Amino acid sequence: MSVSTEVSPIPADVLTRFVADVFRSQGVRTEDADSVAHLMVEADVGGYGTHGVFRLRQYLARLRDGGCNPTPKRQVVSETAATALIDGDNGLGHLAMRAACNLAMAKASDVGIGWVGIRRGNHAGPLALYVRPQADAGMIGMAAAVGSANHVPPFGGTDLLLGTNPIAFSAPSNDADPFLLDMASTVAAMGKIKVLAQRGELMPEGWMVGKDGAPLTDPTRRGDGFLLPIGGTKGFGLSVAIGLLAGVLNGAAFGADVVDFTSDTESETNTGQFVMALDISAFGDKAAFTRTVSRVFDEFRASPPLPGHDTVRLPGEGKTAAAAARRARGLDLNPGLRKELDKIAQETGVPGPFVDTA
Amino acid sequence: MSVSTEVSPIPADVLTRFVADVFRSQGVRTEDADSVAHLMVEADVGGYGTHGVFRLRQYLARLRDGGCNPTPKRQVVSETAATALIDGDNGLGHLAMRAACNLAMAKASDVGIGWVGIRRGNHAGPLALYVRPQADAGMIGMAAAVGSANHVPPFGGTDLLLGTNPIAFSAPSNDADPFLLDMASTVAAMGKIKVLAQRGELMPEGWMVGKDGAPLTDPTRRGDGFLLPIGGTKGFGLSVAIGLLAGVLNGAAFGADVVDFTSDTESETNTGQFVMALDISAFGDKAAFTRTVSRVFDEFRASPPLPGHDTVRLPGEGKTAAAAARRARGLDLNPGLRKELDKIAQETGVPGPFVDTA
Repeated sequence: MSVSTEVSPIPADVLTRFVADVFRSQGVRTEDADSVAHLMVEADVGGYGTHGVFRLRQYLARLRDGGCNPTPKRQVVSETAATALIDGDNGLGHLAMRAACNLAMAKASDVGIGWVGIRRGNHAGPLALYVRPQADAGMIGMAAAVGSANHVPPFGGTDLLLGTNPIAFSAPSNDADPFLLDMASTVAAMGKIKVLAQRGELMPEGWMVGKDGAPLTDPTRRGDGFLLPIGGTKGFGLSVAIGLLAGVLNGAAFGADVVDFTSDTESETNTGQFVMALDISAFGDKAAFTRTVSRVFDEFRASPPLPGHDTVRLPGEGKTAAAAARRARGLDLNPGLRKELDKIAQETGVPGPFVDTA
Repeated sequence: MSVSTEVSPIPADVLTRFVADVFRSQGVRTEDADSVAHLMVEADVGGYGTHGVFRLRQYLARLRDGGCNPTPKRQVVSETAATALIDGDNGLGHLAMRAACNLAMAKASDVGIGWVGIRRGNHAGPLALYVRPQADAGMIGMAAAVGSANHVPPFGGTDLLLGTNPIAFSAPSNDADPFLLDMASTVAAMGKIKVLAQRGELMPEGWMVGKDGAPLTDPTRRGDGFLLPIGGTKGFGLSVAIGLLAGVLNGAAFGADVVDFTSDTESETNTGQFVMALDISAFGDKAAFTRTVSRVFDEFRASPPLPGHDTVRLPGEGKTAAAAARRARGLDLNPGLRKELDKIAQETGVPGPFVDTA
């Protein structure tokens, strides 16, 4: 009988406890550590692996170097019946975003809509985390963020002055999944381009443009070019609109004052975001809404596929089942991330999360 | 001395009076006729020629054939401090949208935000008309609409179940122009493709796809293919989100129940839209907001252009000066539209608007 070299998936609750313990070891309050750990692992459970526990190293570096405040005193600095502005006091970004989501939903219950902005926030994982609760509560959700580093020039320009500025929407349906869209305003994400480079494959035209203005398709040359916004000037405009709503409106960073949160671990980022909730019953009947959503989605799915395409899929489709499977089976973290988490365990003195590598 | 064959531009107020008189001749109330005529001409003044007076023929056909109600009794059917739903009673679309814009701004003044949905509306010209007032009043604006005909399949499908579902944003700045973005969620508009066909030019790849799933670049073959959403699945998702927010939430049409308002002039369209206004002072200092917007926009403009590009332009840039010039000089309507308006004058018995063709 040989020793198995296969690694077992890690249960979500074991991973959550590990991440929370690590944060606690760095001076983060127990309640906050639990919240952030829960949301980070939820990102992995939801299939947003690039925005989940993978980010732990980055967050720790910022906590260690003073770029992020382990014990923030979050405050609502201005408020109406329908709006609020939260100052995140430079704490871990998930804390302010979760608070914004809860507050927006409470306001929507009261007056039909809640719009909550954040300043002095930080990277908070995928926006999906902060719009899914609205759909689960029978509301419509929207959220957006100023990206945590400027990787994108204004359309037709060459200075990196914009992030990938994501926006997300959610709505309940009668299907297995709510409608759930979480998209960057660029055609491709850097992560996807790095994967193509590893595989030795080319990018399609339209993902990046070179410094010469010509299409760039070699992913290993990504440093010599620029990410393109979706729809050219349209995606650029959308990205600017997001920057104004999530950044400038809240007194948060936008443009040249955005701090690259990976390369600079010491400076406060003053990240800006917003979360919105709309109460469907302020406009009409909730049951009629979800019924119509599912009717339209069924029409979409019944549309004969274009050659080369599968059946039409709606944003968010299949996510509920995939998340349930990951919750039941555990999470398959890639070897690099497992190694990184073991290293973090050693550095922080927190017992590692992996039984088979202990 | 030869007789000049050149046509003079038509003063905006002359054109407005003509359009209002035409509507009145079709049973539209004077106040409503004046409002719609003003907004339609404002669209031309603002450079949105495809969504201005050019649409008069379409609107008249729908009024004549019962598809649009000349004497609507508009109602607010549900309301909170921050939200409202307007039933447009199937009147000319501009009326409900203007009312929604005014109501959203009033609510924003009261509680920081106003979100007003419309059902039983109609085509209302460019969304820009309903977000520019917010910027002029120092607010942020957003609006969206379910397109008035289904020209777009769901991503990867082949049935036409989506419109070009536009979305618009505005924000004040310290520049000559506010930020003003009014975009369809498809890469190209049908109008632009028709122009290329007239000129005998090809479309770039990415605008349309053929029924075989391959890129379609011959604009004369546009009937054999499909418009593509910006960013593929992203633009599709955005278009669906707009359909849910502007259509389903308001009890308006979305998906297969959208009526093609050009080919069918008899059926009520139940067009859905929404208009949002955000009061900047509910979040912070208005002067600081406009100062920061202009600082960031200056950074964008200072970015050295990519080869083949001009200086970076912001959405809405130059519109104020161009509109002032059109207001001073008059509007250059194309010969086809001038002929159409003369024909409408004859049909309705309203004196034609063009001195030189009278």
